[in-house]
Amino acid sequence: MSQVKDLRWKNGIRVSELVDFYEHIGFQSVELQKASEVIVKMKKDSAKVFLTFTSNMVTSGLRGFFAQLLELGVADIIVTTVGGLEEDIMKASGEVFQIGNFQTDDVELHEQGINRVGNLLIRNESYMNFEDLMSDILHKLYEKKARWAVSDLLREIGLMLNDSASILYQAAKNNVPVFCPAITDGAFGFHLYLFQQDHPDFVVDVVKDFGNILLVTSQDDKKGVIALGGSISKHHAILATLLNGGAEYAVYMTTAHRTSGSMSGANTNEAKSWGKVKDESDVATVIGDVTITFPLAMMRALDELSDEGLLKVAERQE
Amino acid sequence: MSQVKDLRWKNGIRVSELVDFYEHIGFQSVELQKASEVIVKMKKDSAKVFLTFTSNMVTSGLRGFFAQLLELGVADIIVTTVGGLEEDIMKASGEVFQIGNFQTDDVELHEQGINRVGNLLIRNESYMNFEDLMSDILHKLYEKKARWAVSDLLREIGLMLNDSASILYQAAKNNVPVFCPAITDGAFGFHLYLFQQDHPDFVVDVVKDFGNILLVTSQDDKKGVIALGGSISKHHAILATLLNGGAEYAVYMTTAHRTSGSMSGANTNEAKSWGKVKDESDVATVIGDVTITFPLAMMRALDELSDEGLLKVAERQE
Amino acid sequence: MSQVKDLRWKNGIRVSELVDFYEHIGFQSVELQKASEVIVKMKKDSAKVFLTFTSNMVTSGLRGFFAQLLELGVADIIVTTVGGLEEDIMKASGEVFQIGNFQTDDVELHEQGINRVGNLLIRNESYMNFEDLMSDILHKLYEKKARWAVSDLLREIGLMLNDSASILYQAAKNNVPVFCPAITDGAFGFHLYLFQQDHPDFVVDVVKDFGNILLVTSQDDKKGVIALGGSISKHHAILATLLNGGAEYAVYMTTAHRTSGSMSGANTNEAKSWGKVKDESDVATVIGDVTITFPLAMMRALDELSDEGLLKVAERQE
Amino acid sequence: MSQVKDLRWKNGIRVSELVDFYEHIGFQSVELQKASEVIVKMKKDSAKVFLTFTSNMVTSGLRGFFAQLLELGVADIIVTTVGGLEEDIMKASGEVFQIGNFQTDDVELHEQGINRVGNLLIRNESYMNFEDLMSDILHKLYEKKARWAVSDLLREIGLMLNDSASILYQAAKNNVPVFCPAITDGAFGFHLYLFQQDHPDFVVDVVKDFGNILLVTSQDDKKGVIALGGSISKHHAILATLLNGGAEYAVYMTTAHRTSGSMSGANTNEAKSWGKVKDESDVATVIGDVTITFPLAMMRALDELSDEGLLKVAERQE
Repeated sequence: MSQVKDLRWKNGIRVSELVDFYEHIGFQSVELQKASEVIVKMKKDSAKVFLTFTSNMVTSGLRGFFAQLLELGVADIIVTTVGGLEEDIMKASGEVFQIGNFQTDDVELHEQGINRVGNLLIRNESYMNFEDLMSDILHKLYEKKARWAVSDLLREIGLMLNDSASILYQAAKNNVPVFCPAITDGAFGFHLYLFQQDHPDFVVDVVKDFGNILLVTSQDDKKGVIALGGSISKHHAILATLLNGGAEYAVYMTTAHRTSGSMSGANTNEAKSWGKVKDESDVATVIGDVTITFPLAMMRALDELSDEGLLKVAERQE
Repeated sequence: MSQVKDLRWKNGIRVSELVDFYEHIGFQSVELQKASEVIVKMKKDSAKVFLTFTSNMVTSGLRGFFAQLLELGVADIIVTTVGGLEEDIMKASGEVFQIGNFQTDDVELHEQGINRVGNLLIRNESYMNFEDLMSDILHKLYEKKARWAVSDLLREIGLMLNDSASILYQAAKNNVPVFCPAITDGAFGFHLYLFQQDHPDFVVDVVKDFGNILLVTSQDDKKGVIALGGSISKHHAILATLLNGGAEYAVYMTTAHRTSGSMSGANTNEAKSWGKVKDESDVATVIGDVTITFPLAMMRALDELSDEGLLKVAERQE
Repeated sequence: MSQVKDLRWKNGIRVSELVDFYEHIGFQSVELQKASEVIVKMKKDSAKVFLTFTSNMVTSGLRGFFAQLLELGVADIIVTTVGGLEEDIMKASGEVFQIGNFQTDDVELHEQGINRVGNLLIRNESYMNFEDLMSDILHKLYEKKARWAVSDLLREIGLMLNDSASILYQAAKNNVPVFCPAITDGAFGFHLYLFQQDHPDFVVDVVKDFGNILLVTSQDDKKGVIALGGSISKHHAILATLLNGGAEYAVYMTTAHRTSGSMSGANTNEAKSWGKVKDESDVATVIGDVTITFPLAMMRALDELSDEGLLKVAERQE
Repeated sequence: MSQVKDLRWKNGIRVSELVDFYEHIGFQSVELQKASEVIVKMKKDSAKVFLTFTSNMVTSGLRGFFAQLLELGVADIIVTTVGGLEEDIMKASGEVFQIGNFQTDDVELHEQGINRVGNLLIRNESYMNFEDLMSDILHKLYEKKARWAVSDLLREIGLMLNDSASILYQAAKNNVPVFCPAITDGAFGFHLYLFQQDHPDFVVDVVKDFGNILLVTSQDDKKGVIALGGSISKHHAILATLLNGGAEYAVYMTTAHRTSGSMSGANTNEAKSWGKVKDESDVATVIGDVTITFPLAMMRALDELSDEGLLKVAERQE
């Protein structure tokens, strides 16, 4: 059992040093350090890693970090919601989002043609440019075939992009499938709908994609889930691992609490009920804003994985 | 402007009386009373009402209440996630869920073949019975046609059920479309997948269903959103109203906070930026567990709507 | 074990009926119904009841409800913070607070001489009137003696008031001691300080008051704690019961979560570690805004206690 | 206005680099970076800094960090609750606390004589040893005089300790007053009470201490508040600055939300209503667990302050 110790600052302290010390502070800092260790364990144990996140995280600057994780071979399967994918494509085409604040006058923003996601701002123009991009993309896809499983379609889009900080680009380059169980829940869906109006045989096959996520791992694989935020991204990854016997490792980072009975707030205790988690040290739930907690936990893990030569292109990072 | 007044109990106090008084207490009670009033306003103004909820609410006893709201003509469009629909079907076939507690030993539960959703318990057996039901349902659907928009498929299922407390049943009987943008994210998806393995031309057309939700209201309709919890249910309803010019009325009830920048935590302030909300009194955000807050706000509204003869089958309720 | 059942509305439904049904809904509604039952149990078992609340609840309309609970003999000991007592005195002298909203322009409010507590508004003038009241009160107290234990001082103030909706008034009338472990943490403290400048022998004896709260119950008494919100009010009541062997019953209602390790978020599980709680059914923790949850749980309990003749002046309430 | 940028890891990344980048990520990471900047601004502007924290943070490993901040001259006034001071004294006398977890069996812990604070564990023995310490301390204090203002009493205790990681020790050594508006709300209060039983003229003068906190700054001083967690610590510091014209700078770090109307959840927007805050860039509210967020924000600030020679004993830190 670990002891509480007195934290001390020293000039130029590294993220890894601070996160290592979190083990001795208490409350959520202890969980965060543990989450970082569980991530290292799942990689050392060659588990297939499901990384899930919500759209607002892709609106944020975490987007490039997710792309880098794909480049480094940290994640094997991505599950996310469509809003984030739209914004990944927007950013890949040069759109820039601004930092605003939570107390903005929303009526005034509306008049300026600006949309707010928490304290982040997206111009209407970015969505209009996206419309043109999508029209072009869908025509190219349709030329190849009329019926697409979602992850196949997203892979094709990734190959059309040219931005090393793009999630879809790095996923495609690194053969990481991207699953999106509600592909129509965004502007993307509206463009798919318009396209189908003119091309009635155009089908997005979500049922086939369920097979794809099932087959991307097997009963024999060790599996780990890193779920950032809640929503269907988290649920879908857990479902996919359960149907293949459950995950051995699980890290949940969220602002939601278990007391509402929601999936977003469900903690990793349930993972023990899957029957495959061997002990407490293989799961961690961290309550807090993912924009703060995830870089901390993951960067400490990356430092360690890099030092042990367990990153795909570690040599190129330094 | 309203004043703070001293609350007093009297024996046998009615829900409507207490919620009316909430206007004078403070903090979230004020928002709850306002939410109740906004619901009444949207009905009196003949707005098309989108009601959205998450799966765990259908696991709970709110399920029958949602069905009753359809019977009473309160909601015109439902948006939800697939887990809840599965459980609505299970319950319609006689399955009973138990009340447990949040601090259960999950390993022990697993050994007993019991699944936990917060403090609610579902037996594995219920899922196995569901498998048989689904197989039967899908064969019947496929006999009719091979390509289904989601809401059409859900309507057919509703017609097969025979339970007045079922959401799908009441939706079908009352011509209320049920939208589910991530239809494969659950056991339902697995059964669709297995069925498609044997019937490759079987297609669930999510793109077509995007058209359905767009066309269920028009630019000319007044629109209201009652979003319980967050997730894609809430997002999808807001998206559908935005593409038709925005909603005039919005009530959000959730445990999430705006500080994380998530959709679940986004409050109704944003609704003002849609340009259609006329003033503060047309929107309300209530922070709290929906199992407590929604019956309060809605039952006070129902009492008033009933007294004014604005419920579909009000006479049968008393 | 209880079952999940389908909730149904009927016109004019009473609070007691709805809260009774909460047992069958799920998540926090289940906890709320349980909290109501634990309150009834502690009264039937003749436990000495500690009721604790934070200042903002007295700012709200719960203030008159707390006073009524004293009138009805429901609470035997009050623990709270000084801000609430200031506002109880203000209201007893005729001050009226307004309902505002959470998104007010605070700079503008400041210019209007208005203070904001969440969505409640207090005029500067109310504080200035309070200054005059306090000066008068302190002179009267000092004429009696120079050294006061806090609860004795608060009792004297209660006797000077003449408002049946006042907490201090009803506490004094009904011989319920009011404890306030941080009596100087507010405008009250400032006035005490100014008075002591002119009367150096004037002493508020907080140490003596610790003896008072210890002696108000004994090891032999059965004890119950109803803690609304967190802070030192909750902590002080728990401390006092622990030093007398622990409480048999505990109901916590709060918006805080256990994950931060704070007292505000500590749940009633810890109560089991005191060794006196006999089983799960004697404790309940309800997560949610107290302005919504407490009237529900307590009013259902009052209906039952009234029907069984267990309220002090029940006959006068109807 | 700042832009959203793509975060990238590099091996050995320092805390300061990551926190600097938080400005470009979004949601609470943006607030955290801003909090760090506000701390630097208040120090550069020679503001008198109030640092407030709750007891559970002293239970945690932050205790030594708070002591270091006093050593470095970062804080000028401390406001806290008595539980933390008890534990500071325990730790100074060699007691060691353990890291446990949130899901412990509390009945079993009780049988082992262990107390739980979130995921931290304190043995009963530590409290018994504290009893002996306190008896000795109070006799020494009483020999000097019978009537003590709280902060004077705490200063004397600090001088009796000999632990450079102790808050009371470093406060005394560095002439930083420690205010504790509810000095009796803990085991400390019980020992004060027992002592007073034998020495009836022993008085802890909380009213006099209100004068002390008022006089520690003046209307002319620039003032900054760093409030960690809520409770009376936060309230008392804000009150003290308000009575001297308000603070120019404010950083609040908490897990509470403004929606409950509690002081713990009040955000820095209110600070604008004090009339002294010049612009948005002088206040920041960070929602999250302080054990994670505070070291990040403060360590980046310390790196910068150290580089600019603005720390008291910066040369001794490296």
